Amino acid sequence: MSIFEDNKLQSTSISELGEFGLIDHITKDFKSKNKTTVKAVGDDAAVLKSALDKLQLISTDMLVEGVHFDLSYVPLKHLGYKSVSVNVSDICAMNGKATQITVSIAISNRFPVEAVEELYSGIKSACEKFNVDLIGGDTTSSVSGLVISVTVIGEAKEEKISYRCGAKVNDLLVVTGDLGAAYLGLQILKREKDIFLANPGVQPDLQGNDYSLQRQLKPEARVNLIEVLEELEIKPTSMIDVSDGLTSEILHLSKCSDVGITIYEDKIPIDHTTMNLAKDLNLNPIFCALNGGEDYELLFTIGQEHYDKLKKDVDFTIIGHVTDKSEGNNFITNDSASHPITAQGWDALKK
Amino acid sequence: MSIFEDNKLQSTSISELGEFGLIDHITKDFKSKNKTTVKAVGDDAAVLKSALDKLQLISTDMLVEGVHFDLSYVPLKHLGYKSVSVNVSDICAMNGKATQITVSIAISNRFPVEAVEELYSGIKSACEKFNVDLIGGDTTSSVSGLVISVTVIGEAKEEKISYRCGAKVNDLLVVTGDLGAAYLGLQILKREKDIFLANPGVQPDLQGNDYSLQRQLKPEARVNLIEVLEELEIKPTSMIDVSDGLTSEILHLSKCSDVGITIYEDKIPIDHTTMNLAKDLNLNPIFCALNGGEDYELLFTIGQEHYDKLKKDVDFTIIGHVTDKSEGNNFITNDSASHPITAQGWDALKK
Repeated sequence: MSIFEDNKLQSTSISELGEFGLIDHITKDFKSKNKTTVKAVGDDAAVLKSALDKLQLISTDMLVEGVHFDLSYVPLKHLGYKSVSVNVSDICAMNGKATQITVSIAISNRFPVEAVEELYSGIKSACEKFNVDLIGGDTTSSVSGLVISVTVIGEAKEEKISYRCGAKVNDLLVVTGDLGAAYLGLQILKREKDIFLANPGVQPDLQGNDYSLQRQLKPEARVNLIEVLEELEIKPTSMIDVSDGLTSEILHLSKCSDVGITIYEDKIPIDHTTMNLAKDLNLNPIFCALNGGEDYELLFTIGQEHYDKLKKDVDFTIIGHVTDKSEGNNFITNDSASHPITAQGWDALKK
Repeated sequence: MSIFEDNKLQSTSISELGEFGLIDHITKDFKSKNKTTVKAVGDDAAVLKSALDKLQLISTDMLVEGVHFDLSYVPLKHLGYKSVSVNVSDICAMNGKATQITVSIAISNRFPVEAVEELYSGIKSACEKFNVDLIGGDTTSSVSGLVISVTVIGEAKEEKISYRCGAKVNDLLVVTGDLGAAYLGLQILKREKDIFLANPGVQPDLQGNDYSLQRQLKPEARVNLIEVLEELEIKPTSMIDVSDGLTSEILHLSKCSDVGITIYEDKIPIDHTTMNLAKDLNLNPIFCALNGGEDYELLFTIGQEHYDKLKKDVDFTIIGHVTDKSEGNNFITNDSASHPITAQGWDALKK
């Protein structure tokens, strides 16, 4: 389906299988692993048995063709993987563990069965990676684009759940991994699409940009880092995942927690390949890191007593701290100037 | 929005509110009532506390403009109500009680905020009617039509859950309410749309068809009849809801339960207004009842020992019985002829 793939898919019409046949066909290889899954796909509803000592977490995301993804450069397998991963990320952002998902898709008749198989192979791959069971869904036709709606179910002990609203003055603000690469990956894909449209004979040039492309096309929910926090006996006082962009998430945490947050330019973690790529594309890497979004890293606050546990761990970067609400939300640049972070993102760096 | 409504909606652009503002705006009047709802809308995930003595039921449905509904004749408020009701119906079909829903929508920019408010007023009305809490969702733009994806969560004691697969030979087959009206309601709406398109000056003629129109536009999940079954101490051996049509659902029950099912023409419950309307539209009422779909009645099997409890209740009709698988699925007409029920529905009556 993608301009960047060999299109050697066989073409079987969905109508040959029918809706029920299609559901049977695409879900037959999914095996449930979680003991809370009593009955998965196949009845009017799935049946779950809740863990007695835990609360349940539910989140849902909808991905729409032409809004969230462009099938001319997003491989269906990656799209399937991403649709699960971004939902699992929401459960991570509650300090919980994802256990089940439902996946509903609206697909155009132009999709052959093999395309649906590609999509579900990515969904299956993500289910295996994140140890979540596919327990249900809906498959329908679409008169226009592809729509994927995923609902994820997770669990956490009550005392472990991190809401957005618990940040306290003097807490440290921590972000996992690095930021900005997913945004740059998208810029590369858009650039190559434009070149392809202008001259379909030109092969796309994606070489050397593996990291940013993978961050955009196949983001990984930070399940492993939730486990690290558990091992380190750190419970974030507040947490969110970076889907819309760092500044946007900071505003959510500070608003919900009724505090201010200050972050520092020189602390923002940016991969060296992101730095170089931003320069190649004539973009400011700090702007990409602050406003790019889709990094699916975790942003959280912790009490200062945990500082020593995280200070040497390369997966976690302390980028700021929590202040009184009266101080507002601020970005301190390398020249020590303070700029308020606004709902529109921190615009001063926009080129 | 509808050709059948006065279009006096004010027009406020969604972009004036933004996504987060829109979510706040449309969810602020929803109050949670179920004690299992710990935290509803507003964080990365909702938080639920499961009832200790119950299993949880999860189901999801996606409604797509141009496939499942036509906004030229479906009022948004009814659409919102229906999107909840059809999901609650899936939980009824498991013999459970719905408790929470998530609602994700993809909406075109052509939608003013007031249209989204209409949609959510119907969702709110259904939440109140069925006593379910709105706990989350996603709101995104759409480059084409409206898409609504609802996931419903419910609960039931383990020993009460009715799957599709438990029907036993000699069980009685029961259907609630009456069939065929929703299909005829749709035919009326389509007819009036065609007339309107041919001559926009003509007012739609919907008079006298209240019942079939309501069955199509605002179906009611049969929550009340699940409660009646509980009071009568009847647990269906198998159950499904009638969404695709009676024959289609019979095939699901018989396939899953590895049995045959025989139904009788003279037992099929059809409202007298449905009878008359079918004749007016030159359609066979039995065909409408067998294949029409969208009635959202419950179809279930019970042991013969329960016969006396239901035989005089007008809300329940015994329409057939379960046979050995070798006998297949059969429809017995009034002249005692037996016709096999096939995956294509029982075509012999098609006019």
